[in-house]
Amino acid sequence: MLPGRSPPTRRKSNQVDQMSDEINKSNTVKARLPRGLADRGPAELAATHRMMNAIRESYELHGFEAVETPFIEYTETLGKFLPDLDRPNEGVFSFQDDDEQWLSLRYDLTAPLARYVAEHFDKLPKPYRSYRSGFVFRNEKPGPGRFRQFMQFDADTVGSASVAADAEICMMASHTIEKLGVKRGEYVIKVNNRKVLDGVLEAAGLSGEGRAAQKLIVLRAIDKLDRLGTDGVRLLLGPGRKDESGDFTKGADLSSAAIDRILDFTAARASDNRITIDNLAKAVGSSMQGQEGVAELAEMVRLFEASGYGDGRIVIDPSVVRGLEYYTGPVYEAELTFEVKDEHGRPVRFGSVGGGGRYDGLVARFRGEPVPATGFSIGVSRLLSALRLINSPIVTGEAMKGPVVVLVMDQSEIARYQTFVAQLRNAGIRAELYLGSAGMNAQLKYADKRGSVCAIIQGSNERDKGEIIIKDLIAGAQVAAAAKDMDRNEYLALKARAQFAVAETGLLASVNEVLARYESW
Amino acid sequence: MLPGRSPPTRRKSNQVDQMSDEINKSNTVKARLPRGLADRGPAELAATHRMMNAIRESYELHGFEAVETPFIEYTETLGKFLPDLDRPNEGVFSFQDDDEQWLSLRYDLTAPLARYVAEHFDKLPKPYRSYRSGFVFRNEKPGPGRFRQFMQFDADTVGSASVAADAEICMMASHTIEKLGVKRGEYVIKVNNRKVLDGVLEAAGLSGEGRAAQKLIVLRAIDKLDRLGTDGVRLLLGPGRKDESGDFTKGADLSSAAIDRILDFTAARASDNRITIDNLAKAVGSSMQGQEGVAELAEMVRLFEASGYGDGRIVIDPSVVRGLEYYTGPVYEAELTFEVKDEHGRPVRFGSVGGGGRYDGLVARFRGEPVPATGFSIGVSRLLSALRLINSPIVTGEAMKGPVVVLVMDQSEIARYQTFVAQLRNAGIRAELYLGSAGMNAQLKYADKRGSVCAIIQGSNERDKGEIIIKDLIAGAQVAAAAKDMDRNEYLALKARAQFAVAETGLLASVNEVLARYESW
Repeated sequence: MLPGRSPPTRRKSNQVDQMSDEINKSNTVKARLPRGLADRGPAELAATHRMMNAIRESYELHGFEAVETPFIEYTETLGKFLPDLDRPNEGVFSFQDDDEQWLSLRYDLTAPLARYVAEHFDKLPKPYRSYRSGFVFRNEKPGPGRFRQFMQFDADTVGSASVAADAEICMMASHTIEKLGVKRGEYVIKVNNRKVLDGVLEAAGLSGEGRAAQKLIVLRAIDKLDRLGTDGVRLLLGPGRKDESGDFTKGADLSSAAIDRILDFTAARASDNRITIDNLAKAVGSSMQGQEGVAELAEMVRLFEASGYGDGRIVIDPSVVRGLEYYTGPVYEAELTFEVKDEHGRPVRFGSVGGGGRYDGLVARFRGEPVPATGFSIGVSRLLSALRLINSPIVTGEAMKGPVVVLVMDQSEIARYQTFVAQLRNAGIRAELYLGSAGMNAQLKYADKRGSVCAIIQGSNERDKGEIIIKDLIAGAQVAAAAKDMDRNEYLALKARAQFAVAETGLLASVNEVLARYESW
Repeated sequence: MLPGRSPPTRRKSNQVDQMSDEINKSNTVKARLPRGLADRGPAELAATHRMMNAIRESYELHGFEAVETPFIEYTETLGKFLPDLDRPNEGVFSFQDDDEQWLSLRYDLTAPLARYVAEHFDKLPKPYRSYRSGFVFRNEKPGPGRFRQFMQFDADTVGSASVAADAEICMMASHTIEKLGVKRGEYVIKVNNRKVLDGVLEAAGLSGEGRAAQKLIVLRAIDKLDRLGTDGVRLLLGPGRKDESGDFTKGADLSSAAIDRILDFTAARASDNRITIDNLAKAVGSSMQGQEGVAELAEMVRLFEASGYGDGRIVIDPSVVRGLEYYTGPVYEAELTFEVKDEHGRPVRFGSVGGGGRYDGLVARFRGEPVPATGFSIGVSRLLSALRLINSPIVTGEAMKGPVVVLVMDQSEIARYQTFVAQLRNAGIRAELYLGSAGMNAQLKYADKRGSVCAIIQGSNERDKGEIIIKDLIAGAQVAAAAKDMDRNEYLALKARAQFAVAETGLLASVNEVLARYESW
């Protein structure tokens, strides 16, 4: 035995004694999952697998390489989440190590990347372009479609200050979404820039550190444009707004000139990115920061056009403010535009399936100096549910059929049945011996439940003749369903397809013949 | 926007304010991982990916279907681990939910499967044949090669009492290990049976519940056969043994007839499974339980032979006692037999990479009645390190080459360079624009660090002529290394291969020409 980990045991030995006396009816444990967690069966796993492979291929095509970090990090690594003793699990799942240091389950893939880059900074190629996927955990109240464990798929470029890095990630997002089966016109990549908004706010007289709270009110007001319309947002930018229930929301108390400037900005999106850029250039006025942001967006538009993405798939949209308080430069959001019904049955856009932006403070927490970085995160489960809605081939790709099932008609002949299974497996055909103790009908029902196409039967009659019966379970179901509506010849032909006897030596050829009748075997 | 989860943000918004003021040199966080956790880079991830795919294919060939459970379960689901308040994390990572219930990270894939089967019992096909893989967590002292997060790959058949289920898993283990590149003769699947041992103990006068402690001493003594030899174990089965340091280990105090019977049992392994079975039949004497166990092993041997596994790959070996106190019937262990050096430089067998057995109490904790079950677990990381030692194609398969790198010789021409990148990507060639700000030599070093085969360069001279320079980085390295030892014609030929100018329109053809020179692009 090598030094190190002892071979995997199925269960830790110190549990054995504890468990052996637990088995009695009066003392059973309820089989249940904690809220906000879910099991996944073969169809969902296969779809997820195909989807992840497609994303991985797209990211590698764009020059990103794989990296993986563990699920557990020091709590301080993840941010200022040092749990207080009263609510140690606020937002994240945390626990103390045996040396009293706090550990947490990662809640995204960005903070661990920052730790990884900072720890291995000198040996990494720079810029460092990486992708990673995996589960993240949120200790929040779960709800419908809202889980406490869910999967993200991220790509980041660390160490590049160039907006070419941001433009590339927007184009990669577009490319990836199309590879997943979303058609052009069913999605849009929206781009904004924190510096442009800051410039507009500066031009509106809202600059300086003391204005942080007021800025936040402005951001939140803009985010409500969809819901409240221009008039509602105008109130929130000004004196405040009373909603239908009579609740009053305090406003940002801006002058009416400042309000006009902000609303002009939010309305700057035009049908052509270049016109949007011109509108934004006016909105930021003489603000240096604003002009810098507009120049960055203009450069990104140039790169989109040079790469064949100048056809409206990627849109400069100043109404995107999500995350703007956090990001430091360009922000982007991938939105699916097809309609679905909301909880009240009203048609709404499906909405965002991913987003990201430039955050130059990413690695700075560890290295003490800013390191430019930009990245993008896909919400895998949410995107998968979108792909279901549009019947993407990724999810509709017919589920893999079940294995060929060799029935057990006589328990004393199991070794003989096992030779049939072995022949099939040696030929690369998924196959199994029925391992239960039920009779023939239940065995055939089992094969149906597994989604099998084909079953092999040998009773004592067949055995004496050196024969086996091949059952085509799909044709068999057709016989049962359609017998009444068929003429006799049709019926007999179908029946002959559904079940026929062959010599034992013909097993492989006959099974192959049946499997070839159906796709996605 | 659909109801439910809000679109993925890269970071929780409540952290933003906390983080923005953290960035200054005096207040940095150390970038480090907690003990016993590890990051994984692209080469290891690619090898793991190939390995997991091979295992998955083998398991599906054998008729097992995928299932996945979450990482977090109720602590009571996992076993009687209810944390006491002084040491809440003994063995497992545990934390309290906001409703005070204890949650834990799974420490294996078996306990969650039991919960899953019990929860969905009525809708599952029975027997239920499933596989699952993923990380498990142990809150233990880490050591070399011993991690607190590691990966397992399990397969289980639940609801079958037939030893054909056990035999199948042994054969599947053999098939899988060979698919991973381990040659016949470099591994063995060892099989034993709890009932045989119990029968031998019964025949030795050690039956009855009051003898549990004594039985455990016997099991532990047998487990030391390798290290202590027959004489040492004889002492441990009898009065006890003093080791070299003078420490005394209490013995099982068996009669010398009983000791002989047990040592006959441990020596029962013969070169042929059928002879071993005969030896075991003698060792269990008239014990009913022992005879039942021997009959089960005999039936398994018959099935191995019927399936073409009768050639010594699977061996009945009574010295396997690992887990026997836990399992209720057949147990099996996959052992790699090639030699490696232990920590003292002595040659030892690599040892176990997986194991399992029949445990009919698996689902009973939840359902109150025994449900027959048998399963197998592979230690993925340990197996991967074994595959490295034998240079399996799974791990040696040449690492994917890096993307084609388009150099940036003039920042104002980025859009032009981007068109080159877009052309390559549209042709399915992994490619990227250099996104940093360094000069040409550093850019070429970057491409080397990425493992790239090919770089594209266009300075102002080339641009004026409508040309690009294609650099073959591998040939370039050969030129640099071998220039002195070459005659002038050879040198010039190699140099012409390593770097040449073509018209811009020849980009794709020339890159394809360079890539075709090398494998595993």
